[in-house]
Formats: sequence, C-alpha cells, structure tokens
Amino acid sequence: MRTSQYLLATLKETPANAEVVSHQLMLRAGLVRNLASGLYTWLPTGLKVLRKVEKIVREEMERAGAIEALMPVVQPADLWEESGRWDEYGPELLRINDRHQRPFVLGPTHEEVITKLIGNEISSYKQLPINVFQVQTKFRDEIRPRFGVMRGREFLMKDAYSFHLEQECLEQTYQKMFDAYCRIFERLGLDYRPVIADTGSIGGDASHEFHVLAESGEDDIAFSDSSDFAANIEKAEALAPASPRAEATQALTKVATPGVKSIEEVAAFLKVDAKATVKTLMVLAPEDENGQQAVVALVLRGDHQLNEIKAEKLDGVAAPLTFASEEQIQAAINCQAGSIGPVNLPVEVIVDRSAAHLADFACGANEDGYHYTGANWDRDAENYRVEDIRNVVEGDPSPCGQGKIIIKRGIEVGHIFQLGKKYADAMNCGVLTESGKHQTLTMGCYGIGVSRIVAAAIEQNHDKYGIKWPAAIAPFQAAIVPMNMAKSARVKETAEALYQELQQAGIDVLFDDRKERPGVMFADHELIGTPLLLVIGERNLDNQQIEVKNRITGEKSLLAIDEVLSLFKPQ
Amino acid sequence: MRTSQYLLATLKETPANAEVVSHQLMLRAGLVRNLASGLYTWLPTGLKVLRKVEKIVREEMERAGAIEALMPVVQPADLWEESGRWDEYGPELLRINDRHQRPFVLGPTHEEVITKLIGNEISSYKQLPINVFQVQTKFRDEIRPRFGVMRGREFLMKDAYSFHLEQECLEQTYQKMFDAYCRIFERLGLDYRPVIADTGSIGGDASHEFHVLAESGEDDIAFSDSSDFAANIEKAEALAPASPRAEATQALTKVATPGVKSIEEVAAFLKVDAKATVKTLMVLAPEDENGQQAVVALVLRGDHQLNEIKAEKLDGVAAPLTFASEEQIQAAINCQAGSIGPVNLPVEVIVDRSAAHLADFACGANEDGYHYTGANWDRDAENYRVEDIRNVVEGDPSPCGQGKIIIKRGIEVGHIFQLGKKYADAMNCGVLTESGKHQTLTMGCYGIGVSRIVAAAIEQNHDKYGIKWPAAIAPFQAAIVPMNMAKSARVKETAEALYQELQQAGIDVLFDDRKERPGVMFADHELIGTPLLLVIGERNLDNQQIEVKNRITGEKSLLAIDEVLSLFKPQ
Repeated sequence: MRTSQYLLATLKETPANAEVVSHQLMLRAGLVRNLASGLYTWLPTGLKVLRKVEKIVREEMERAGAIEALMPVVQPADLWEESGRWDEYGPELLRINDRHQRPFVLGPTHEEVITKLIGNEISSYKQLPINVFQVQTKFRDEIRPRFGVMRGREFLMKDAYSFHLEQECLEQTYQKMFDAYCRIFERLGLDYRPVIADTGSIGGDASHEFHVLAESGEDDIAFSDSSDFAANIEKAEALAPASPRAEATQALTKVATPGVKSIEEVAAFLKVDAKATVKTLMVLAPEDENGQQAVVALVLRGDHQLNEIKAEKLDGVAAPLTFASEEQIQAAINCQAGSIGPVNLPVEVIVDRSAAHLADFACGANEDGYHYTGANWDRDAENYRVEDIRNVVEGDPSPCGQGKIIIKRGIEVGHIFQLGKKYADAMNCGVLTESGKHQTLTMGCYGIGVSRIVAAAIEQNHDKYGIKWPAAIAPFQAAIVPMNMAKSARVKETAEALYQELQQAGIDVLFDDRKERPGVMFADHELIGTPLLLVIGERNLDNQQIEVKNRITGEKSLLAIDEVLSLFKPQ
Repeated sequence: MRTSQYLLATLKETPANAEVVSHQLMLRAGLVRNLASGLYTWLPTGLKVLRKVEKIVREEMERAGAIEALMPVVQPADLWEESGRWDEYGPELLRINDRHQRPFVLGPTHEEVITKLIGNEISSYKQLPINVFQVQTKFRDEIRPRFGVMRGREFLMKDAYSFHLEQECLEQTYQKMFDAYCRIFERLGLDYRPVIADTGSIGGDASHEFHVLAESGEDDIAFSDSSDFAANIEKAEALAPASPRAEATQALTKVATPGVKSIEEVAAFLKVDAKATVKTLMVLAPEDENGQQAVVALVLRGDHQLNEIKAEKLDGVAAPLTFASEEQIQAAINCQAGSIGPVNLPVEVIVDRSAAHLADFACGANEDGYHYTGANWDRDAENYRVEDIRNVVEGDPSPCGQGKIIIKRGIEVGHIFQLGKKYADAMNCGVLTESGKHQTLTMGCYGIGVSRIVAAAIEQNHDKYGIKWPAAIAPFQAAIVPMNMAKSARVKETAEALYQELQQAGIDVLFDDRKERPGVMFADHELIGTPLLLVIGERNLDNQQIEVKNRITGEKSLLAIDEVLSLFKPQ
C-alpha cells in the first residue's frame, strides 16, 4: 500500500474528549473515527488490525472444533419473551419496531437465536455435542459509552454456544474453549490472565474471564503471589483469619463524638487504627409478602470495602443490592447513617469474617453523636451471622491456600460460561437420548470482544510516541520510509524496487511515498506502531544499505538491501 | 470437516412458503434458516459459500485500488437530515430511537457516513481520488420480504464510494469498477451481463446494473441480437419507426361500442389488430402553485406497455408516476377511463413514438360507449407531443443501431453509479484545489449484493437433485462418501486416510462419516451441490480405486487412490 493512495488519517493533536490512552491513540493513529456516541467507523488501518485479531480468533475456534454460522443482528422480540430476557434485560437492550410495528431487538448476544436454532435442527443425541460460533456485530445501548471502542455501543464480538447432553461433556468443551482462549491471547502477543469470574446476570455454574493486564483496566483482579490462582475481585473469597479471636479486655464505653461520621473521622477522633473499628452499612432485604423491604445491617472492618456482588447473593439481602435511604434508616434505627453500630441493633446483622474477628473495637452507638469503644462480639453484640462480604486486599491469604493476594488491574476481553439449562429449559431445546427419552440440553457460551481487544492491546503496548503493536496484529509488518525521495532518483528507485520486492513476497508493507519531511514520516509511523521502519537514504545507499528501525526495541541497524527479505523469515 | 461434527441440516421435503427454487434449495441444502420475516441465519454450509463470494469481491476491490473500511450499521439521523434522505427515503428506512430517545437509522446504504468522513479527513486535492469500500450488514425494511435471502431485510453488501475533483477522474474510476465487477462475476463462474440502468432515486448521471441471467429474475433486460448492447428494460430506448407515417385513407367515424373497454375488447369488437389501436392512460401532472394537479394523457399503441420510469421523468408529469382516479378522469373528460382517446382531448397529450406513427387508428371517443375508427394525427388530433414512453419489445430495433432486441430475465446483483455532487453538495464535502480554491467533490458509488449472489448463483445453477455450484463458490471442493463404513474396516481405513491426505493438502473436503445408507448420502451431497464425490466401496478397493462422481457433468469414473490429489491441481 502506498500512503498516497491510502487513508492514513493520522492526527498531530490529541483529540479532546478521549480519556484513555488507547482511545487517544486510536484516533491519532487513524484507526477509528467517532460517528456518534459509542459508534465508530473503522478506518483502513484500524480495520487491518481488527481483521488480524478476527482471523486468529476464527482459526483457534475452528481448531477447537467449533463450526461457524452467522445469525442476524436484528432479532424478533418473541424469542426474548420466551427466554424471559425481554423483561430481565435493562435498557441496554435496544428495542425497536419495524414498519408493521412488530417488536425486535438489536442483538447484544445470541443465546435465544442459537438455542431456538439448535432446538429445531438437532433431534438426536448422536448429533451432540455441537459448538457453533459466529463473528458478528453486536449492539448494547450503554448509558454512557466511553473509552472509544473499549465501551462502545456497536462492536464486533465472537460468540460461541455449545450444547450437550451431560454436564461432563459441557465441562470437556468448556476446557477446550479455555485452552483455545489461552492460545488466542498468546498468539495475539498479549499479557493476559484467565481469572475466576462471577456468572452475573447471565446465570450458570462456572465462569472464567480473560483479562489483558493494563493499569487502565476497569477491573481489579486478585492473584496469588505463589500460585496460578487469579480471580476477579468480585469473586475472590476473603478467608476468615486463621487465628482464634482475641479475648475482650476493655469495657464497652459510650463516647460523645460530635460531628464525627466517617471511619477516618472516627479513627482520628478516638486515636485508634481504622482496623480496630467497624463500619455498619444499611441495605434492604428482599420484599416480604406485603411488598415491604426490611433494613439489614452489613458490618465490615473499618479499612475494608464492601463486595456488593457477594452481599447481594446472600439470603436475606435484596438483589440487586440496594442501600437504605436516610428515611429508611431513621425509621428503623432512629439515628443517622454515620452513627450506626452492631451493639443492640434492632435489625438483622450480617458481619464480615474479618470484622467478626475483632475484639475491643470501636463502632457507632446507634445514637447521633455517639460511638462505643471497647465493643466485643457476643458480650455486647448478639444475634449476628458471619459471612464473606468484603473485597480481598493485597496481603490477604490467597483462597487457593498458597501465598498472599496481590491485586492488578485488567481489561476483560473474553468471558466463558457454563450456562447450564437456563435457555434450553425456557425454550424447550432437547433431544431424544439413546433410550428414547426427551432430555433438555445443557449449554456453554463463550465470548470474545474482538474490537475491544484492539483497544486493550494498545493500553498494554504503547509509549509516548504511539502504539507498539505485538507483531501478530500490527496493521503493517513494515514501512518503507524514503528520505527526500523527490530530490534523489536513487532513493526513489531503491524504494520502488524494495516495495515491489516485498509486495511480491507477500509482506504487508506501507510505502510512504508522500512528499513529507522525514520527521513527519517518522512521527506518523511511530504513532501507528509499525514494527519495522525501512529507512532509505542517500548516505547508506553508497554502501548498498538501508537503516532498519525496530519500533519495539528502538534499535537501529544497517542492513544490505538484498538482505531485507530475511527480516521477515519466520524465526 | 466430518459430518458427524457438523451441522449438515439438510431437509428431505421442500419447505412450504418457499416460492423460488433458490429459496427452496437454500433451506433444503441447509444453507440458511428463517428467523423472522426477511431475517435469515446462515448455517455453516451457507456461510462457507457467502465467505467465498465475499473473498472474491474483496480481492477484486483491492486489486482495483479500493481501500477497505467498516462503518457502523447504526447511523445517526442528523446525517440523513443533512443529505435530505431522512425525508426522501420511504418506510424501507428503519428509524429507531436509542435509550435517550435520540433518532438513528439502520443503514440501508452508507453515502451519508462516508461523505461526512471524507469531508472531515480529506482536505487537499493531493489525496484524491480515493475509493473506500466495506463489506457490511445492511437493513432495508421491505414491506414484503420474499424469495429468501434474495429480497431479505438484513443482508450482506459490498458498497464502495469514490471521491474525485473532476468528472473525468470519476469516469476513470467508474470504468475500473466496471472492469472489477466483470472480473468478480467471471471468477464467481456466473453467466452475467452488465446492463445500462436507470439511476433511480439515488440520483446521478450514469449507471450500470450487473445481472445474473436466470428465468426467475425479477428484471427484464433488453439485449441486441447483434451487439454487446444490454439495458434494463426500464431504461432501453424504444426508437421511433424509421419509415415515414402512412397517409390517412379513412374518415373519422364514431362507432357505438357498448360495454367495450379494454384494448382486447376494442380490437375484437372492431375486428382490427391491437397494433392498429391506441390506448390512452390518464396520469397526474406535478402540483401547480395552488397545489392542484392537472390530468395528462399518455397515448400508446394498443399492444405496447407503458414504461413508468420513462414517463415520470418527462416535463409535465408528476414523479412518482400517479394514475388519475375515476373521479379525476370524470371531472376532466366526463367519461370513463375505457372510452378515452386523443381526438379533441381537453388535456395535455403525450404520444409514444410508435403510436404517433399510426394512421387510420381506432381509439376512444371521449364519450362512454363510443370509439372512433379511422382516426389520424394532426387531421383529427392536434396539440400533442411525441416522446418515448413505452417498454421495448422483442423484435424492436436495438437503440445501439445494430440488430434487434431480445429480452431475457435477470437478477440484479450489482449496481454502479456516477452519483455526481448530490451528497457532497448537501454535506459540504470538498477540498482545496491546486490553486487554493474550495471545490465540492464528485462521487461514484458501487454496490454488490453479497448474500443475493448466493441465491442468484443457485437460480442459475441447479437441477432437480439440487444445487450445481460453480467451483469457485462451492461450500466444499469434494465429499468423501464411504459405502457401509461400519461393516468394512478397509473402507473405513481408506476413507480416513484419504480425509487426512486431502486435509493436509488444504482441500476443503467434507467426510461423510454418518452411519447412513448410500442413497441418503448421495442425495444429500447432490442437494448440497458438492462438485466432486469421492465414493469409496469394497469392490473398487480390490483395484486400489475409488469412484469419482462429477456433480456438474454427471460423469462417473474410476481413479487410483494415490491419484486423488491430481483432481485438485489447478488446470
């Protein structure tokens, strides 16, 4: 490709409104352009990367035995009513009417379509297991699209769905997909981790996310420093302290704490460590038979953070987790939120394992402007239950039993689920077994955010000059950069000849034939992140050489012109 | 691919509601499944064909210098308001609102998006010409989707858009695209014709359609029997008869014709040929300054058909063409539609060239129940103008000047336009010229219906057993069909070994490892249209041979097992 016949579209300035570095660089390097909130056009350079990612994903899906199909973007609403998701799914599901006022959705995923299809097409256990994938445009009407294609509304996704007679077979395919995902991210050249994940609203039994590690990631991931253990912090178990709880040594004492509310204020006022305090958060219980929701207290050590995912899964707690209003707290406790504590608290009390391990702790006295010191469980506060409701923190023992927790940030680029029978049950998807009985199928689903991978790769691989693509997904393998071609016939001839040679060898090369200053050309190619720059200048041509600049290592070296092809030999 | 691990999904019965043979065969051969009206899931076999078509289209676009991008399916309404198409486009444009009640459309084409993009990204004449293409899902909310993917609502299209400073440059790119389209349809192995086309509502100056010839086609195409001339019948000019008009020999005579209305009835009653009569059709003129629409008469020879496209382009005729109601005709002429004729007709009269060549003709007398015989132009009917307003018919002289017209049916699979400045003007898409002036760009657009090509290929290539794919787009190059594999270890071993060998050679082969009777297997592979069946049976193995069945020619031959690979050598 010649730049003069290409849409390079690089930008010198960082565009306003691009918050994260991948979004900035995707705009500056001419990979995408914004069309409307959360909608992006993929320019030629970006599309080349996207297609390289897609190709690797497709090859590994096929290698793992999945077969490709293509389901429509637009799906009829009745399928979503059948599965129950028409009511369950929030406003991210874009619902539309056709010209006859029949309801449809723009597909955010395709569980309904594939389950209906398999239910119709597969009638015998002999045709199982089957694993069908597609690479298709999805639409999710995000309330606040942001970070470019990282959280766009229209995006490209690979989704696969497997169907099985038995859980054991599902687990085998799940493992195949797990392995295929590992190969995909290895081939992409990304630093990634599979992590144990919460199954969330999609339901099901087991789940892993695949994260590209990057400081800008939206998710916290808990690793063991001594094993392979990794889990989304939403899911990582905080173990109970191993030692027995200390004995009580202090008397329960009510202290006037005027204006003191937050844990920081309490700890400072009482001159104790936040670790020696507890905080009490008030949430709602599920509706009772009269539609009323009681208030429930969640008690954590002062320095710990509530894990909402863990909390909302508990019996007696409403899902999604809903915090009690000031009015609801006043009605139940007759004091403000900042003064609540577990001593004589007239509601159900759920205590985190670490908070339950404290002795002689400080807490709210359930009276505005007062706290207790020297509080102790059982002696002062009774009728509570102990659960894991906090986020793990660095230094916690790893739940795998080996080593301590460290926390890193990640960008979720893949997610695999053992879905179970949720959809197959709802949509009557089953087969006749060998013994002639009808049996509902069990199901797995496996997603990869193809367009998001492009952004995540940049978050992980860039410097102040631009993108540093992993070789497998660089838009071009190399760029030919001639110096002052307009003034040197020899430079022009050499560049043209090299371009022909590389093209004929099947190398994906960009020939920068613009009449631009060398500095402008170098800046563009470093921004775009082309791995190898082949710089052709008068001086080196005296020795029949060109200069090769490596974008990743920054190394420059001289190379004989007739050895350029050796750069592209598989190592 | 092994059938046991594949979704073959063939059907024995022809599904109800599938009217055309391609739709029937696409369902029966397991290429697609209907999800909702006009929405289809591409099953693995169909998707393989679709991707092969897409690949050929992409390769030829790139060879012709077009660069690939990817624009969103969902487009903001404001772009459509800017171009004017928000109001122009009918209900086929699916308009939707997002969660914030902002209006969007599902893109039926992408002129607006690309024109806005190029207007933003290209600032200098040095960056021109540029030709950008994409292969993307489109949506058109057809009022009556039918014929399967032939006229679906969601479909895959390749659309390209070129931008130029000057008409001459546009014409060069237009010719390149014309040539690329010819190469595409040649490579696809289809019998096709480029035909001169009407530019229709998309506007512009010159246009060609590419048609796959098939009796089931929806379009009539006029060819010359002696030259390359081909035009959509909408566009083919009906030349004026070359000879001078005959002299009048009869007197104008009013004849009572009670109950006689249609041309067939008139000709039978008066005992004349329909070619010696004229029919007069009443349509509306454009609105005048008071919003009123006058009635206009269109006069054709009795045996000719009105060409509405030609008529609605005439000055003095409303577009789209609108026939006058009975009430409007009564108000203007005071008689019924079946009794109108051009003698003393008190409205504007437009006469087709062939009707204007008649002498001594029969026509309505503008009085219910009466016709004239012996009518003659100028003597009896004055104040008319002559235009080309009919469809050509077989035997007409070709407008190219060589030979006579023959008419065949075609399926439109491609359409290229010289669009001109319609979009660039409306959306302010221009550059600075060499002399520093701002100049609006001129534009071409070039579409191919990728999914429709699959259906059109089947319409053109099938027999009573199923599909006869052109080799370039057959889903599989060959199928291995072992006879009674369960009972013969030798057959099984040979089949497995051959499968491994062909796979390793990169041949796209389907290994039919089902425990089915030979008849069932043959029927399936003939239905799917696999070009070569490699039949492995006990008897031929005695001679180290297999039987090769050619789907296109029907020929069977024996081949040594170790020569099978030679079948796949490029010829």
